[in-house]
Amino acid sequence: MKLVRHGAAGSEKPGIVDANGRVRDLSGTIRDIDGETLSPEGLDRLRAIDPATLPLVPEGVRLGVPVARVGNLVCIGLNYTDHAEETNAPIPSQPIIFNKHTGALSGPNDDVILPPGSTKLDWEVELAFVMGRTAWHVDEADALSYVAGYTILNDLSEREYQLEWEGQWSKGKSYPTFAPCGPWLVTGDELGDPQQLDLWLDLNEQREQTGTTTRMIFTCAHIVSYASRFMKLEPGDIITTGTPPGVGLGRKPPVFMKAGDTMRLGITGLGEQQQTVRPRAA
Amino acid sequence: MKLVRHGAAGSEKPGIVDANGRVRDLSGTIRDIDGETLSPEGLDRLRAIDPATLPLVPEGVRLGVPVARVGNLVCIGLNYTDHAEETNAPIPSQPIIFNKHTGALSGPNDDVILPPGSTKLDWEVELAFVMGRTAWHVDEADALSYVAGYTILNDLSEREYQLEWEGQWSKGKSYPTFAPCGPWLVTGDELGDPQQLDLWLDLNEQREQTGTTTRMIFTCAHIVSYASRFMKLEPGDIITTGTPPGVGLGRKPPVFMKAGDTMRLGITGLGEQQQTVRPRAA
Repeated sequence: MKLVRHGAAGSEKPGIVDANGRVRDLSGTIRDIDGETLSPEGLDRLRAIDPATLPLVPEGVRLGVPVARVGNLVCIGLNYTDHAEETNAPIPSQPIIFNKHTGALSGPNDDVILPPGSTKLDWEVELAFVMGRTAWHVDEADALSYVAGYTILNDLSEREYQLEWEGQWSKGKSYPTFAPCGPWLVTGDELGDPQQLDLWLDLNEQREQTGTTTRMIFTCAHIVSYASRFMKLEPGDIITTGTPPGVGLGRKPPVFMKAGDTMRLGITGLGEQQQTVRPRAA
Repeated sequence: MKLVRHGAAGSEKPGIVDANGRVRDLSGTIRDIDGETLSPEGLDRLRAIDPATLPLVPEGVRLGVPVARVGNLVCIGLNYTDHAEETNAPIPSQPIIFNKHTGALSGPNDDVILPPGSTKLDWEVELAFVMGRTAWHVDEADALSYVAGYTILNDLSEREYQLEWEGQWSKGKSYPTFAPCGPWLVTGDELGDPQQLDLWLDLNEQREQTGTTTRMIFTCAHIVSYASRFMKLEPGDIITTGTPPGVGLGRKPPVFMKAGDTMRLGITGLGEQQQTVRPRAA
């Protein structure tokens, strides 16, 4: 299944993508797509529905974050060997965990806001997954059974805020629109092996990032198991798994974004996102 | 006003503390205490109620986190000069921001769980505040008008996870029960100046931390304004403002907690918390 949330920002409704790629409205069936919907039982109830029986949503409708009421947006840093190298960071021996403020989340094709005075805005295509069951001290062998589905997350980063100013990374990772998420939440049974996916990102129609989840240092299953030793992951929590090589910080000299720049990014089986950078309205 | 949430974990009801210090039940008036309740208008509606007209709650009732559905638990690090010195960290020139997973939150007197194998569990009494209005690029001069109220937060930290393992601080700060919060949410009008409060923490009835918010490097108002440049703070978000000197990591040699240890901590006008450390049940 491909689940979506469609409609204006703040009033999205639940939906499902049918066999022809059209969005069908689920709002007559469930209130929203959230931690409750994403339990194994909740997903089974949705699987029992024939999407063709649901009302079609007009084409071109805005898509929102495919999960509502995200409890925590947990991030893994430097999870691709080549990306760690390009940013002159050592290869981690265990997953690096940080958080983005959940207010960073935005729809997959919403504009990205350039913070006032920002000069080091960077892109990061990432595979993200959404928890469907509470995970606390879970084994790697069955860790993926706690995951409801997968999506794309662009882990936008202001490198000056993240690295040059005092402190921890979340300062440069949390600005509103710094986490475009979607277009779809694709359930694990439909996606297949999350460690066999290609990722890519274009800036202004030039390919910048090319990667494959075969090159992750820590797999999705390992991340769930590892993180669950340090926090109780809850249904609706999003975990984003790090970016492959090709970010602006890694270019020589570094390349950062300005108003008007466009990003297009995608992952095998998870669709595409497209964003334009614009300044914050006064 | 002093607002509370009373009852068993997971099914707390809203309440208010009356003039005699007794908890009165608000569940006939509001659904819960959350970001919506904590708007200026929401608080004014509660102020119009005479607590004496509300049902008394039995004495000794368990208290929960005084805010439900906390969106983000944002933390400021090294915000007291003396604490930065005792941990051999440089004095920050701007606030250090990190996050705890919201699943770390627990009631003010709930047991604190020692993670399996943990040997470096440490305490940190902190002044926390809860947002009542959305704050994004707000000026320091009126920053406190975005704050609904204040409470105590024990920012428990596993120093090995936080500092010796790979990565960012949140790994050592996010375990369930690592953020006892409460007992009350005290509104700003009742508390008075948040920069004139004494803080203290006892471990096994020995005083370990003594501090005053006059010694904060960055005031609550500065923190709101500063953080609002990097994230959109939402009603119900909790921000905890750092700990004064006296943590176990700062002792020579360092002192950490084991099962059976008890903490008692308090802040002027905000009441007290008490926790016992226990191992995680198998």
